[in-house]
Parts: sequence; structure tokens; C-alpha cells
Amino acid sequence: MDDRLLFHVDGELVSADEATVSVEDRGFAYGDAAFETLRAFGGEVFRWEAHAERLARTCETLTLDHGLTDEDLKDRIDETLAANDLADAYVKLSITRGTQPGTLDPHPEIDPTVVVIVKPLPRGGVGGEPPYDGPATLQTTRTRKPSARALPADAKTHNYLNGILARLELRGTGADEALMLDPDGNVAEGATSNLFFADGAALRTPSLDGPILPGITRRTVIEIAEEEGIPVEEGTYTPDAVRSAGEVFLTNSTWGIRPVEVVDGIAVDGDGEGVAGPLTTLLSRLYDLKIEEEYYDGERI
Amino acid sequence: MDDRLLFHVDGELVSADEATVSVEDRGFAYGDAAFETLRAFGGEVFRWEAHAERLARTCETLTLDHGLTDEDLKDRIDETLAANDLADAYVKLSITRGTQPGTLDPHPEIDPTVVVIVKPLPRGGVGGEPPYDGPATLQTTRTRKPSARALPADAKTHNYLNGILARLELRGTGADEALMLDPDGNVAEGATSNLFFADGAALRTPSLDGPILPGITRRTVIEIAEEEGIPVEEGTYTPDAVRSAGEVFLTNSTWGIRPVEVVDGIAVDGDGEGVAGPLTTLLSRLYDLKIEEEYYDGERI
Repeated sequence: MDDRLLFHVDGELVSADEATVSVEDRGFAYGDAAFETLRAFGGEVFRWEAHAERLARTCETLTLDHGLTDEDLKDRIDETLAANDLADAYVKLSITRGTQPGTLDPHPEIDPTVVVIVKPLPRGGVGGEPPYDGPATLQTTRTRKPSARALPADAKTHNYLNGILARLELRGTGADEALMLDPDGNVAEGATSNLFFADGAALRTPSLDGPILPGITRRTVIEIAEEEGIPVEEGTYTPDAVRSAGEVFLTNSTWGIRPVEVVDGIAVDGDGEGVAGPLTTLLSRLYDLKIEEEYYDGERI
Repeated sequence: MDDRLLFHVDGELVSADEATVSVEDRGFAYGDAAFETLRAFGGEVFRWEAHAERLARTCETLTLDHGLTDEDLKDRIDETLAANDLADAYVKLSITRGTQPGTLDPHPEIDPTVVVIVKPLPRGGVGGEPPYDGPATLQTTRTRKPSARALPADAKTHNYLNGILARLELRGTGADEALMLDPDGNVAEGATSNLFFADGAALRTPSLDGPILPGITRRTVIEIAEEEGIPVEEGTYTPDAVRSAGEVFLTNSTWGIRPVEVVDGIAVDGDGEGVAGPLTTLLSRLYDLKIEEEYYDGERI
């Protein structure tokens, strides 16, 4: 951890090495906590309303009635960014059910623990350095997403072992993101990313009917594509459809759009020219432009 | 939390209100931690070897190579019990993957965080007060156990939301334990307990082939039954088989054997005499006798 950073814990700014929670906090004991990973561009959090809405849905799924307003949560993020003098940053906001008497049964009265962690990231927008290490290499894992009846996929919680088990399978394979399947063996998503692929002019992504996180960047990419008149199909796809696709890319709040160069050992080779095919390149440029306009006053346009 | 208690965190005894972990600890961030719940009788932990063995298997599943010996872990538990002057206690031992650089991907080099929490419990053995509030009322939940390909059921981890979601469904129903089904709709276990039921002279419990925690108390009950010549069948059962059973009981390390009086609103009524049928009563007595002999020098026999 970087001890020079300040984190926000339970209403206070504290140095990273003093940022702690009780060992009896349910966030620690059971992963009984909701979170959002956000990115700040030019001092402002990307798509705050969408994140706040998803966080509220996660808390509803967990019956975690924390009693805080979206404004209060936003203030804590803004204070943390300001205290660290960070304009371009990774932000993680967590709300736990706090410490409660007894063991597993949650009590309706909640004294939540709110944690904001920030880390510096490169500037986004036009000409920004991507915060990932080159294009991704995907590998289908044996570990599958849980069914919605076991753990709802649209809830972002501190129960993240499913993704960790998938990532552990990648050790020694050269792959850096898991291609995770749903219980029926159809394509779901990466361990920390949504998946898109394209054949010719149509963009495809697994539908939210499956066990898939409704990613904010996923939605932004769909909006951009629709604005451009690029057909977007949300459906059910086999791993083979991805392996044979001309273009594949991943999205999440930190990466934005990240091209994929290999799927299960097979090179993605849309136009024979290498990694990012024409649609991926176009969408990445439009995504950067959107961020440039919305968060950097278009200074590089 | 009880501030008069001392907990063991990262090699040190600290008061409960100062027992904390970093907000960047993977146990907090992702529930990336193994644990065991144990019970101490007369100052000694019940079936330590079996718990240590299961903990090692959980850590193997998580590729969490903590580098500590069973003796070291046992010493930390014993120190914590002694420091609190507790002979009869609830004990929770957790090992997390600690704080690591980067985000989701676990690094092979691990500086684990080890936490021991203790709480007083009533004496066990013959004439001991059970540490539960009367017989259990079971209710089948919509929340099902994840498949083994999503989250292995034999690993005891800080990813406990599946059980919490099941318990949340019980609010307002009068039930206090969930009857959780496997992905195929067969009976699996409770949110924190294994399930047994009986018809006539045969004892039945879901087989470990399903997504079921291999409970230490479950195993002890099977051993006791076999020693007594009671037939034990480990199989696959429908919820109807439990609803229509003459006797039903639950097991876990804290409760020992806990009778069930209602399943899905239907009274369990083996002999028409009330809650604990003859087999449950016999097994409970034999279980108490075993604890009395092994942990209290048989002082009440």
C-alpha cells in the first residue's frame, strides 16, 4: 500500500497505513458489502449517477439500508480526491453492513462502514495513456459464473472469490483475463470486465439476461455505437463465437476499452493487420473524445 | 463488539475494539480468506486436527500458501483462549491473503493476515446448556447453493453472501435457518449447518457429492451413528423427503446437534410427542457423552 495516500474511512480522512476496519466488520467477516470501482477524469468521477444507481441496486439486493444520500457518498469521494490532489484516479467506494451483534443473520438496524480508496491513474481522453499493460489475452476458465439464484450477478459485492478463482487458473498460461461462462456454458464476461466482439459491422455482447454485471462502460460503449449507427446485438453466445470473431475487446471503468489479441490461444485477426480491428479503433477514439469533451473541456480536441 | 475481549491479529493480542485489518487487505476487499469456526470445551478446541485439515484444503483451493504450521495456528488459538480466561468458547480462525500490490490478481508471495476471534459459550458435554435458542424452524429458500464450478462448497471462505441472502429471505417468516437446495433443486444444507433427517431407524444426510460443506460435527455424528449400528445413508434427496421425515436435525460446530421442529410450515412430529424424536435424542446424548469424556475428563458421567 502507498502510505502517502489518504483514504476515507467511516467519515474521516486517514493515511493509507491507518485505514482499517474492525475484524468484526461484516465486510471483512463475510464480504457483506457493496462497492463501485470508478474512474476520475480531470478531478471528476466518470458517470457518477450511473454508479450511484447501480450501488443503490446492489444495496437493495443485499437489503443493506445504509441511510446515506448519493450526495454524501459523492462528497466523500470528492474530499478524498482533493485531499490527495488527484485529478486522474482510480476510485473504489465500499459500503459494508458494519459491525453487528450475533453472527450471520443481518440486523435491520445498520451502522454502515464507508470506505473510499483512491490511486493515481494516467489522464484519460484524447492522447491519454491507457492504464493497462497492452492488449488482453483471454482464456476460457473451468470456473464459471454462479447462477443468479446463488449470487445475483448485477450486485457488485465484496464476494469476489469467483473471479479470483478464475484468475488463478490463468497462472502460467500467459493469459491475463478469464473468459468466464454462465452455468449453461455460454459466454458471460471476464473476471473484472464485460466482453464485446464483432464480425463485420455488427457489435455483439452477452445480454444482461445472463449472469452479467451491467457495466457502466459497457453501457457507454453501446450508447456510442448506437449514436454512430453501428448495430449492437445483445444475445447468448457460445465461446466458439468469440474465438472466431474478427474483433474482441473488453470494457471496465478502469480500462475503458481494451483490445483483445488472443482468445484461447487463437490470435484475433480482424483485418490481418494486428490487434485492434477497425470497429475497436473507432469506438476507442469516440470513447476518448467523449471523455475529452465531458471531463477535460475538450482541451485536446 | 465486546471491548473487554482480546483478539489475536497478525501475531499480537489486541483488545477487540483495536482489532482491525487494512481496508486493502484482500480479506476485506474480496473476501479472499479461509476460515474455521471452532468450539472450545474445557479449554481445548474440539477436533482440532479435522479443522486444521479442512482449513488446509480450503487454502489449497484458494492457492493461498500462508506458510504457517498447524501448531502455530493452534498456539494462536490457545493463547487467545488463555488471555481471555475462556474454557468454553466460540472460536473463529481466519487466514487472509493479506495486502498485495495491484488489484484482483493474487500474487504467489503471501504475507497472510491471521485473525482469531473468541466469544464465551456455555459449557458443553453432559448437562451443558445448548448455545442456540430452542429447536430450529427451517424454510426452503429461493436462494440456492452455487455450483461447485462457481464456488467450491468444501472451501470455507469469507465469501458468505450466499448464506446471508438465504437468511434474509427468512425475515418475517418465523424461520431461523434456511433449507438451501443445490442447483438441481435437491436438498443441500442450511446457511450455517448440515442437515440430517430420519425415517424409522435410518439416518439420512445429503452426500458430499453435492455442494455441501464437509462439516466436522456432521462427520462426528455419522461416526457416532455407525458405532451404534444405526444405518446412515448419504444420498440425494428432494425437499419433500425432508418435509415428510419423522425427525430432522441440524449440525454445526457451535450448535452441536440442534433439533428441527418445523420444515416449510409443517411440524416435524416423529413420535407424536413433540420435537426431538428418539434418534435425535439418542444421538444428542451420545454426542454430549463423547464431549464429556474427551474434554471434561468425564466429570459429569
